[in-house]
Amino acid sequence: MVDGEVHGDPRIAISGLNDLDEATASEITFITKAGRAEAIENTRAAAVIVPLAVHSASKPLLRVKDPNVAAAVIHGYFESRPFEAAGISDQAVIGTDCAIPDQISISARAVLGNRVRLGERVTIHAGVVIGDRVTIGDDCILYPNVIVYPESRIGNRVLIHSGSVIGSDGYGYATDKNGRHLKRPHVGFVQIDDDVEIGANVCVDRGTFGRTWIKQGVKIDNLVQVAHNVVIGEGSLVVAQVGLAGSSSLGRGVVIGGQAGIKGHVHLEDGVMVAAQSGVHNNQPAGAIVSGTPAIPHKDWLKSSSILAKLPELYREIRELKKQLAALQAKGNGPKGQRPHRKKTAGKRGGKNEE
Amino acid sequence: MVDGEVHGDPRIAISGLNDLDEATASEITFITKAGRAEAIENTRAAAVIVPLAVHSASKPLLRVKDPNVAAAVIHGYFESRPFEAAGISDQAVIGTDCAIPDQISISARAVLGNRVRLGERVTIHAGVVIGDRVTIGDDCILYPNVIVYPESRIGNRVLIHSGSVIGSDGYGYATDKNGRHLKRPHVGFVQIDDDVEIGANVCVDRGTFGRTWIKQGVKIDNLVQVAHNVVIGEGSLVVAQVGLAGSSSLGRGVVIGGQAGIKGHVHLEDGVMVAAQSGVHNNQPAGAIVSGTPAIPHKDWLKSSSILAKLPELYREIRELKKQLAALQAKGNGPKGQRPHRKKTAGKRGGKNEE
Amino acid sequence: MVDGEVHGDPRIAISGLNDLDEATASEITFITKAGRAEAIENTRAAAVIVPLAVHSASKPLLRVKDPNVAAAVIHGYFESRPFEAAGISDQAVIGTDCAIPDQISISARAVLGNRVRLGERVTIHAGVVIGDRVTIGDDCILYPNVIVYPESRIGNRVLIHSGSVIGSDGYGYATDKNGRHLKRPHVGFVQIDDDVEIGANVCVDRGTFGRTWIKQGVKIDNLVQVAHNVVIGEGSLVVAQVGLAGSSSLGRGVVIGGQAGIKGHVHLEDGVMVAAQSGVHNNQPAGAIVSGTPAIPHKDWLKSSSILAKLPELYREIRELKKQLAALQAKGNGPKGQRPHRKKTAGKRGGKNEE
Repeated sequence: MVDGEVHGDPRIAISGLNDLDEATASEITFITKAGRAEAIENTRAAAVIVPLAVHSASKPLLRVKDPNVAAAVIHGYFESRPFEAAGISDQAVIGTDCAIPDQISISARAVLGNRVRLGERVTIHAGVVIGDRVTIGDDCILYPNVIVYPESRIGNRVLIHSGSVIGSDGYGYATDKNGRHLKRPHVGFVQIDDDVEIGANVCVDRGTFGRTWIKQGVKIDNLVQVAHNVVIGEGSLVVAQVGLAGSSSLGRGVVIGGQAGIKGHVHLEDGVMVAAQSGVHNNQPAGAIVSGTPAIPHKDWLKSSSILAKLPELYREIRELKKQLAALQAKGNGPKGQRPHRKKTAGKRGGKNEE
Repeated sequence: MVDGEVHGDPRIAISGLNDLDEATASEITFITKAGRAEAIENTRAAAVIVPLAVHSASKPLLRVKDPNVAAAVIHGYFESRPFEAAGISDQAVIGTDCAIPDQISISARAVLGNRVRLGERVTIHAGVVIGDRVTIGDDCILYPNVIVYPESRIGNRVLIHSGSVIGSDGYGYATDKNGRHLKRPHVGFVQIDDDVEIGANVCVDRGTFGRTWIKQGVKIDNLVQVAHNVVIGEGSLVVAQVGLAGSSSLGRGVVIGGQAGIKGHVHLEDGVMVAAQSGVHNNQPAGAIVSGTPAIPHKDWLKSSSILAKLPELYREIRELKKQLAALQAKGNGPKGQRPHRKKTAGKRGGKNEE
Repeated sequence: MVDGEVHGDPRIAISGLNDLDEATASEITFITKAGRAEAIENTRAAAVIVPLAVHSASKPLLRVKDPNVAAAVIHGYFESRPFEAAGISDQAVIGTDCAIPDQISISARAVLGNRVRLGERVTIHAGVVIGDRVTIGDDCILYPNVIVYPESRIGNRVLIHSGSVIGSDGYGYATDKNGRHLKRPHVGFVQIDDDVEIGANVCVDRGTFGRTWIKQGVKIDNLVQVAHNVVIGEGSLVVAQVGLAGSSSLGRGVVIGGQAGIKGHVHLEDGVMVAAQSGVHNNQPAGAIVSGTPAIPHKDWLKSSSILAKLPELYREIRELKKQLAALQAKGNGPKGQRPHRKKTAGKRGGKNEE
């Protein structure tokens, strides 16, 4: 299952996975770094998933290339439950002309509009509201109070956590000569592809025209703003409280740190990484790692920000240099000398440079 | 309707408005800049709204001063639908002593408290909860799961998107000598004037005393925090994820960029513009354009932030200047000379300037 | 009640508390600073709570050490209402094996899962969804549309405002060699201790393993992100739009300003204060006051940020210093002289320093 090698008794039975502190004698646990190998001796776990660099210990080991991945796979195996169709609650409200398969769970107080199409094994929790003509693929879970506006298109195996709003109008106005903001109709839609997970209280606006598009395998954390016509490429990660402004676009495997903002219409190519709280004002080439507002290469930002704290010192030093230089100039010119470059330094700033 | 001039066949029938790429042969589209005039040749649209600087093309044109405004007006015309009263769902919950006109749509699972007053042609979507004594004007739309706490006062033509919370308690505590935070009662309310639009998952806290006030024509994007006793002046724009702290106030036509924060009690006069992610710590005069944290005039910020990336270089240069100056001083003093300004430069920093 | 001293007629009857502007002749009001004593003459209030430094005025006074605390206590007294049990609405949905006392108010459209345990005098508003096996203590209020995921544990006197989501999955994935993000099961829970208040549209993720823990007396403002396994110490204050990343932890009495972010696994000891919009990347010792991104001591940040605006000027000055120094060097070397430190200054940057 995880392409690992068992070291020790291969016949022990494992009932679950837990972390080092809480694992019981029937559970497996894991360490991600060989340096933490001594912790193996202190856990009650029956066995430990370890990186290849750990060769033996007093407990059975499962040696793997990437313990993080192996733990996620094994834990997912233990925690997965077969879908149990609860059917449609008689306290749910279902519109007309909906296509709903038998293998479905729709809780009390869910509301579906007209012509909604649901895939197999979908779970719609209490308080979810799904607008007209929405389509949802197989094996999706919409947690309590998720709102999906009309025309949204959701793929397979999509999870959306509570309070998230999919498909509300974008922020688009035309301001007339009297300063009145005229609302632009938002006639586009939201498309969410397979294997996307969206956190709690996220906002994904519909396209002004066309679509806002969250592609396959994207994972979005809580409280994120995805504006109209944004495109998020396959497998990108968007951490909590990020804001993606209108028509910004992310390539594949982009990572946006928490509370960062991407300006409207800016494009981040594949694999770009944006540090938390950054503000990206310009397009970024593939693989760029950027920080700060406006965002610059992360290496440069590290240097600059380390000097930021020294600014008061630099300021004093410059003042001191000026004083000393002026003294030197005065001395050099002496009673008989002339000022060097008098014409050049005199001028708008010249006064400051004279004694 | 838009005060424009038709160039070409004025009798063509238009069924809608769409963008350049998606417009069909029965739709009108638009360009906002004359420089994009060549795009007119590639759209399938029947006609194009253009700025006055475009005089002719192979298609019928509608020449206008501001194509953005004209497109919004024309698109709004095509997309507007007459209000159709769906009445009150028998699965809605309505309190006592409410005033609800006939021309109304209240969906299943909406909950209204007691003594709620609704205007004409109001749409209350599923899952909306409206507290006691709330008043709502004509032609408002409350999207699914909007929450309005008791006593809130909402004007005409107000749109509030899903998940927004109007009138929750502000963040106000008095900390006693034991460090215990005593809750201040929040006995104020929220007032939202005509033509306001509020995005999804926005929070507007009620006043501690008196009101939190969102004035006429204000447009608020998603995930914005409006704290207790904030005042937002007519026609101001507040972009996604902005935070307006308690008792901050905005004049008319203020624009706050995404993720910016305004400190408590700070006042921004008419027309102030705040760049995205800025933090405004001080009052700003009318028309000021500010950036950064703490916010300074945008022009200055542009200069400063462009130098930020050069800080490491500056740092090295100052080190070099000090070295060279010290060498020059040493040489000038020579075997026979004296150090200039010895008393002045010697001192807490003097040592660094000597070889 | 507030350990104060009455100055003036002690027999006047007071019907409530209000602010200076809105207080009526039967209400008490308050000022927090002696410098505002002249305002006493302009309020209609029957009496005024004042700091000890105010000794007399034309109205009865209540002289106290801390008028903020006294006003909160007195106002809380006037506004407190005895709990009135409304019982369980017949439009609420209650799961199996729940433990619900008689003294309870559960509104229409609330949904409780199975084996939920509620304390005495709990108010569950409309649209609240409570998952299986949740426990809630005495005297709690869950405002409309609060979502509590399964297994969450909530103490006594906890207030949670509308739209907040307690216990959703954390943001945790393991990325395999193909770039696929495998979801880690989140098998932990959320624990909220006594006297906590949580604002609107807040997200508190459950632990990956073990708990996310909000301790006694913590007050959280709106739109805050509390990630998996975060610990917030007793009496800490977390202002709007703050993000606390996974496994970050706060000691007692920590204050986090609005829109600030705390990096994952960072620990802030007791009494740390973080300025608004800061980004804290490192552990902070008890009592530290920090600002900026990355956060540094607030005093240093004040100095540095005041110089930020002067960077363009510094930049010009350094250019000027270099020019003058070069001129001086040239003159000093004259036709017969030699360049000082030639070997040292020549090098990668040397060229710039020569004429």
